[in-house]
Amino acid sequence: MLHLQTRTEHFTSPLYLESGRILEPFDIIFETYGTLNEVKDNVVVVTHALTGSHHAAGYYEDDKKPGWWDGFIGPGKAIDTDRFFVICSNVIGSCFGSTGPMSRMFPYDEPYRYKFPVVSIKDMVKAQRLLFDRLGLHKVHAIVGGSMGAMQALQFAVSYPNFASKIIAMAGTHATQPWAIAFNKIAQEAILRDPGFKQGYYDPDEVRKEGLHGMAIGRMAGHISFLSHESMARKFGREYRRDDGLFELFGKFQVETYLEYNGFNFTKWFDPLSYLYITKAINIFDLARGFDSLEEAIGQIKAELHLIGFEKDLLFLPSEMIKIHEIARKFGLTCNYLEVPSDYGHDAFLVELEKFDTYVKDALG
Amino acid sequence: MLHLQTRTEHFTSPLYLESGRILEPFDIIFETYGTLNEVKDNVVVVTHALTGSHHAAGYYEDDKKPGWWDGFIGPGKAIDTDRFFVICSNVIGSCFGSTGPMSRMFPYDEPYRYKFPVVSIKDMVKAQRLLFDRLGLHKVHAIVGGSMGAMQALQFAVSYPNFASKIIAMAGTHATQPWAIAFNKIAQEAILRDPGFKQGYYDPDEVRKEGLHGMAIGRMAGHISFLSHESMARKFGREYRRDDGLFELFGKFQVETYLEYNGFNFTKWFDPLSYLYITKAINIFDLARGFDSLEEAIGQIKAELHLIGFEKDLLFLPSEMIKIHEIARKFGLTCNYLEVPSDYGHDAFLVELEKFDTYVKDALG
Repeated sequence: MLHLQTRTEHFTSPLYLESGRILEPFDIIFETYGTLNEVKDNVVVVTHALTGSHHAAGYYEDDKKPGWWDGFIGPGKAIDTDRFFVICSNVIGSCFGSTGPMSRMFPYDEPYRYKFPVVSIKDMVKAQRLLFDRLGLHKVHAIVGGSMGAMQALQFAVSYPNFASKIIAMAGTHATQPWAIAFNKIAQEAILRDPGFKQGYYDPDEVRKEGLHGMAIGRMAGHISFLSHESMARKFGREYRRDDGLFELFGKFQVETYLEYNGFNFTKWFDPLSYLYITKAINIFDLARGFDSLEEAIGQIKAELHLIGFEKDLLFLPSEMIKIHEIARKFGLTCNYLEVPSDYGHDAFLVELEKFDTYVKDALG
Repeated sequence: MLHLQTRTEHFTSPLYLESGRILEPFDIIFETYGTLNEVKDNVVVVTHALTGSHHAAGYYEDDKKPGWWDGFIGPGKAIDTDRFFVICSNVIGSCFGSTGPMSRMFPYDEPYRYKFPVVSIKDMVKAQRLLFDRLGLHKVHAIVGGSMGAMQALQFAVSYPNFASKIIAMAGTHATQPWAIAFNKIAQEAILRDPGFKQGYYDPDEVRKEGLHGMAIGRMAGHISFLSHESMARKFGREYRRDDGLFELFGKFQVETYLEYNGFNFTKWFDPLSYLYITKAINIFDLARGFDSLEEAIGQIKAELHLIGFEKDLLFLPSEMIKIHEIARKFGLTCNYLEVPSDYGHDAFLVELEKFDTYVKDALG
């Protein structure tokens, strides 16, 4: 059985953000699995992606589905909770318990909404570092994450070179490219233009109940970017929902039903403003920011690096990870790059675990 | 100088559609370039893509840009108007002069709107065949088209095996795959959910003047699908429009400005209902429909086939063209497949003409 604990830490001292603004006070919600050993050297930090949360593994009492990386985290699994004390926190800006745009803007009783400051990946990492300090964890064995989680893992390595011994980053990049920014743009535009968004002054309960079409449409675009031409063809083919419906204007292919379901369902569990803020954080992610070059940024790293790219990932190309790998090797860092053969697309890091879980298990040592 | 003529033909006899419905009466607008020779054996038909029109080359008096394939059609060009009489017509369902959803629903004075029947690629081709009959062109030298134009060219070859001697189809498919259907879905949903669309009862002048956000968002998704990760990175990089804007929530990357401009500009020159109908026609395109198999469909073909795929075309993969090629070869057809090395994406057939214009010139003989 997975030993799971969820807790929130409240911080009253200010978080100085990259933008020059301040977040104060703020909360971070986090979850742990496994047991911290006496010398505290068995900590593995897991970092989540755009719509992920601190609930990375196991089941809550009323859960129908387990945490988002349950196949990867647990007794005997790639991130083995029999050996490691695993901790995953919800990023600031998100909507699952850490401070985000719909949190109370202290001392007022109103939520921030647009008054919430822009947060960057570097800010998310900084906030997590404060959490770990609070917990007495000044050094960890490894940080493991995919997609936006990979950005955080890499940012940890650059910003806090002595914090983690190993970095395992998958399906990520050194700097978000226009292809990914373009998909985020669809979502942002669709949310902003939806009358139900009310220019940020929506009633969150109403949005959850009624759905927000703009966010559903944006999420549909997201789902395209998470897959590939090949995996969609395999998953859906040209299956039609109604045999005689081909010539009705609004007859539907299976892929359309899939996008609709996932798009509209998404509006029930994610917040539109959080989506705007987190996609913004992803768009502006650039490991080189604050340095003269990417080389200089990567030159800060002391951790052992494990980079994993997925062959048909269109959102963050393997070549983006290879670029980090090549620079790291030039600096004499211990860095290994694994390219996973896959035609699934970006979401392979969540789906095709069997293709890289042994690698990660070995990398964790 | 390119000799350009534009004309509309009116048809009063019914067009029997694949759905069982009838379109009656209907108009087809078309354009010609070059001169028909005495024995009428120098005709090249050009078929257009989703948002294309009959205006394939040359300039109208107030044109700032020439027709959509001007680099390809003209004196001495790949489709040489010194030798060929080139004809390009606007497909039914479109909005540039051929009968579409905003045309008058005779005998009433109102436009069809949703009462317009679903049209298929096969219907578009059937209507064109009636046009060519009317013009006394019962056999043509070649049909050349890309994307939805390739679908039409291939459908011509299957439906009217004796009509064209050569078929040159590029960046197309034998049947639209879920990846492409998914992108169309974004556009369809965004249009349908836009309050300005008024469930089909919009005022077209108002839409053109004010723009329709939903269609703009859909077109943005389209623009992603027309490009590739690589061509976007090359075109836009991570250029930011305002140096100090990185931490403003709505600061913009160049790729975002590009999508916005093209998305919103699109609503000024294309009709939302036409977009719904034509994307539907693309979605339901399947060369095998009406036959027991794709093999049986391709078995009908008598024309010489030239298939061109583009390496990084994500909308219609080269493998989809190769599939046609392999079946055609099995039937002993004269078929050649050219794969153009390119990382541009789907739009390469409109942009990187220098990579295949010599091939097409030679193929036309």
